[in-house]
Amino acid sequence: MSDSKPISRFPVPDLADVPEDVRAMILAVQDKAGFVPNVFLTFAHRPAEFRAFFAYHDALLLRETGPNGLTKGDKEMVIVATSGANQCLYCVVAHGALLRIYEKKPLVADQVAVNYRKADISDRQKAMLAFAMKVCDDSAAIGEADFAALHAHAFSDEDAWDIAGITALFGLSNRMANVTAMRPNDEFYLMGRVPRDKR
Amino acid sequence: MSDSKPISRFPVPDLADVPEDVRAMILAVQDKAGFVPNVFLTFAHRPAEFRAFFAYHDALLLRETGPNGLTKGDKEMVIVATSGANQCLYCVVAHGALLRIYEKKPLVADQVAVNYRKADISDRQKAMLAFAMKVCDDSAAIGEADFAALHAHAFSDEDAWDIAGITALFGLSNRMANVTAMRPNDEFYLMGRVPRDKR
Amino acid sequence: MSDSKPISRFPVPDLADVPEDVRAMILAVQDKAGFVPNVFLTFAHRPAEFRAFFAYHDALLLRETGPNGLTKGDKEMVIVATSGANQCLYCVVAHGALLRIYEKKPLVADQVAVNYRKADISDRQKAMLAFAMKVCDDSAAIGEADFAALHAHAFSDEDAWDIAGITALFGLSNRMANVTAMRPNDEFYLMGRVPRDKR
Amino acid sequence: MSDSKPISRFPVPDLADVPEDVRAMILAVQDKAGFVPNVFLTFAHRPAEFRAFFAYHDALLLRETGPNGLTKGDKEMVIVATSGANQCLYCVVAHGALLRIYEKKPLVADQVAVNYRKADISDRQKAMLAFAMKVCDDSAAIGEADFAALHAHAFSDEDAWDIAGITALFGLSNRMANVTAMRPNDEFYLMGRVPRDKR
Amino acid sequence: MSDSKPISRFPVPDLADVPEDVRAMILAVQDKAGFVPNVFLTFAHRPAEFRAFFAYHDALLLRETGPNGLTKGDKEMVIVATSGANQCLYCVVAHGALLRIYEKKPLVADQVAVNYRKADISDRQKAMLAFAMKVCDDSAAIGEADFAALHAHAFSDEDAWDIAGITALFGLSNRMANVTAMRPNDEFYLMGRVPRDKR
Amino acid sequence: MSDSKPISRFPVPDLADVPEDVRAMILAVQDKAGFVPNVFLTFAHRPAEFRAFFAYHDALLLRETGPNGLTKGDKEMVIVATSGANQCLYCVVAHGALLRIYEKKPLVADQVAVNYRKADISDRQKAMLAFAMKVCDDSAAIGEADFAALHAHAFSDEDAWDIAGITALFGLSNRMANVTAMRPNDEFYLMGRVPRDKR
Repeated sequence: MSDSKPISRFPVPDLADVPEDVRAMILAVQDKAGFVPNVFLTFAHRPAEFRAFFAYHDALLLRETGPNGLTKGDKEMVIVATSGANQCLYCVVAHGALLRIYEKKPLVADQVAVNYRKADISDRQKAMLAFAMKVCDDSAAIGEADFAALHAHAFSDEDAWDIAGITALFGLSNRMANVTAMRPNDEFYLMGRVPRDKR
Repeated sequence: MSDSKPISRFPVPDLADVPEDVRAMILAVQDKAGFVPNVFLTFAHRPAEFRAFFAYHDALLLRETGPNGLTKGDKEMVIVATSGANQCLYCVVAHGALLRIYEKKPLVADQVAVNYRKADISDRQKAMLAFAMKVCDDSAAIGEADFAALHAHAFSDEDAWDIAGITALFGLSNRMANVTAMRPNDEFYLMGRVPRDKR
Repeated sequence: MSDSKPISRFPVPDLADVPEDVRAMILAVQDKAGFVPNVFLTFAHRPAEFRAFFAYHDALLLRETGPNGLTKGDKEMVIVATSGANQCLYCVVAHGALLRIYEKKPLVADQVAVNYRKADISDRQKAMLAFAMKVCDDSAAIGEADFAALHAHAFSDEDAWDIAGITALFGLSNRMANVTAMRPNDEFYLMGRVPRDKR
Repeated sequence: MSDSKPISRFPVPDLADVPEDVRAMILAVQDKAGFVPNVFLTFAHRPAEFRAFFAYHDALLLRETGPNGLTKGDKEMVIVATSGANQCLYCVVAHGALLRIYEKKPLVADQVAVNYRKADISDRQKAMLAFAMKVCDDSAAIGEADFAALHAHAFSDEDAWDIAGITALFGLSNRMANVTAMRPNDEFYLMGRVPRDKR
Repeated sequence: MSDSKPISRFPVPDLADVPEDVRAMILAVQDKAGFVPNVFLTFAHRPAEFRAFFAYHDALLLRETGPNGLTKGDKEMVIVATSGANQCLYCVVAHGALLRIYEKKPLVADQVAVNYRKADISDRQKAMLAFAMKVCDDSAAIGEADFAALHAHAFSDEDAWDIAGITALFGLSNRMANVTAMRPNDEFYLMGRVPRDKR
Repeated sequence: MSDSKPISRFPVPDLADVPEDVRAMILAVQDKAGFVPNVFLTFAHRPAEFRAFFAYHDALLLRETGPNGLTKGDKEMVIVATSGANQCLYCVVAHGALLRIYEKKPLVADQVAVNYRKADISDRQKAMLAFAMKVCDDSAAIGEADFAALHAHAFSDEDAWDIAGITALFGLSNRMANVTAMRPNDEFYLMGRVPRDKR
């Protein structure tokens, strides 16, 4: 599949023209994924923001959270729910793919994007997403009762920070993707939907 | 004035315990401002997020925007309006101080935080804030008509990115400040309200 | 794939126990689709409502609309957008499958469900969905200006009725699916995503 | 009283031109009520939808619900509250008349249409309407706690389906009435307000 | 009809115990209307607020507005629309009665309370109510474009003040009636619905 | 400081032209405050409304509420929170000054205007403001549970009336200030922020 539609409403630089470290990151993700997710190309228009965004992303998403903390799947679930609430096509599609892969559940991303209450996820994950949705939609009203609801599902305060941080970072990402009309790569739509050995 | 109230709902590290580069940044801002804004201490609990947040902040706020682009005052105005909409006490108070100072207008921050339409600002600034408020509240509906409204006031597409980026970054900051119950330093409340020679 | 999760929060009758005409409809759809969509089994709990719902469905969906009227794909697009707005998992997933198939576009359903403004659809289809969203969310404010916006894209008044009717019927369906926790069949998630000859 | 104002924004067929079964239904209601409610004439423009709508209506409204189930008055109360929330003039006025008559309370329809919490109705009826309002406004959030609140007032799960079904059907009806600018017959406004023997 | 239901959630004073001027006002309205509207008895619990409320009421409602200004019927129309938006039962019912009487239209109050856009009123009155609804729901966004829309229908700035003032005063009244659970007198429900010579 | 900006979108009368009693009130407040708050000049355009508004104001604000009732500071807190919710610049700024002075807390007004949940106020005051915010935003849903929440903090029913009345009156004031574009006097912004002996 090739993307003939614009990737971004803003200029997308040639790889040859981006700073060395940005190009290296882009080539690394291309090596790993087999294609360059359009968020890298869209943000490459602003290298300093590119570096900061992915540094923040890695700080939260690659953070070691311990045996009881958020799993990679949990984190992608927060991203997909937040992106659904903010109606961000890029992030629902791209992180939906990651969610399906990490959770090994081909149906879960569509469920979480539309209505997490009906998703095939644990009660603990539903509590996590209820906290994320309040951070997303009404953070000024977050109070101790909200932390207590997380503690009741064995989430720590650090886990609460992780949930809030991921929700807040993807609130940023959702807004930038909506303003730039960032287009999800076609490849993401099908990833994780079909078992590898069946393709 | 001293802050006896908690700075953050989360642990605040001793300066002695934070990584060298984080401590250096904190000491630098203390040298310049005369005190350490609590956002530095709150985020220092998570050094990797600290570095990414301030890198993103500097990428947008220190970016050279050219003679017709956003001024420092314009940028702080976007932050204050966004923070008012998200009911973020820390950012309204801290960036309200910066807004008063950059714009040399002791009244403007309160005006923008409550209702920018009634503020003593230019029509161009009102158009800037109308775009910011739509990015803040309904980014999924942003379309070419919104860019055209900015162009009518001689904002470029790059300026639109700046407005959106600042709105999005402070949407993140507002959510983190609300979740951490980040307390504005007492010093901010009065800064820029009284002419220096009258104090 | 097998559905071990409950189809509905309410009792689901055995096929042997449903009235003859209802059973005949269910068997017919099974013959055609290869499986029984869960909406048939959920509604079979109330045969009179089952008959009325599918009669209404056929009246609108099978209606001959003429060369310039709504296509089958247009109609499914209205359903998917409405169901996204109402956060109805069953209808987003099941009608998303039909939308992909009718439009022969494997990506379009996810796009329309999340944010139709960013979808790979025509301006005419976006006008159709803007009308549908106003019927869905604020029908009391529909006025002549809304009809005029449709006419500008060569939609007739009868087409406006079709759009409104489909939006209204699936507003009903979305509410019943949400209240009954109607589960989409696993089969729908992948339908229309992979070209038949590639499977 | 005669209706010189248009009944519907869409064409209203002559009785002579409508299909036999539709005409028979219209004449039957005219015999019973003394006039033809405009919903019959508006929907007669689309006979297949006419049949399906009234079949659905009868399935829910004429359903035998047992000694503890919803009464005719309860059902009209759900319709009036839903129609008030959706700002549907036709249904508030027409079903308000039926509500007054069934409940033998000349004041209750105005009360329920404006704010059911202040109406002269039982706590059980208020619980019924609270469930209906959540189905109307936020069906995606309906969960077991909402069913439990109904059970606490001796409503069964089947009663919950009835409440949801009526709310959903009149959500459809409200949207169609708003889009067609369906005009309530003048006769409805006064029905049930004055004791028959006093007129 | 007698009111056995409580008039107010708060104490209602005996007429013998209220200050002389308050009692005089109550007796005067009783003479004129044939009964004491419950708003007089509810507010009599706080004589100073009673005096101020009715002084404000008279200032706006009895104000001479000139041949092109708001008529008595226009003013009651603003009250009924505002009270519908604020879901205030007392004011919808009591001022609905006055609206029917002043406009000599037995249907208009129900129409305006549910959806003024569908009411049998002039385009000028619809423009008046559109302004009132924005003052009611989003006064911070009122700007010159809103005044211009009124001017286009030959409303003056003073008329705009009248509309805003009545909307604002009944916003106060609606909130007090909702908090005190102020009960409309039974008499209001039927007033103006039946021609006097037909009763 | 002098106000060169317009005080009001509407005509502001010369003091010489206003009725004697209105002028006397204006001169009295000028004597006390050292300047004339613009609300007096804006409302003086309509003397009858001027008298009623300030009578209502005094009835609630000067009312003796007893040792356990609302203090002057409590009352200003309700005004500032309400005015923040209604985005009324005049009232946030002018009553923010009074709140700082009565409470002797230079920071409290900004805190309450932005997000009372994060303010340095008592739990009792937070309960008071939660009630006020519900009266402000959703008075139709006020019920006994809301009164009980006040009683739990030793507020009486009369205190509840006071809170509701102040919220309702300033809902009126906020709407009039927004429509008239009433400008806060420059003097208010700094009042109560700096200890008198330090100025």
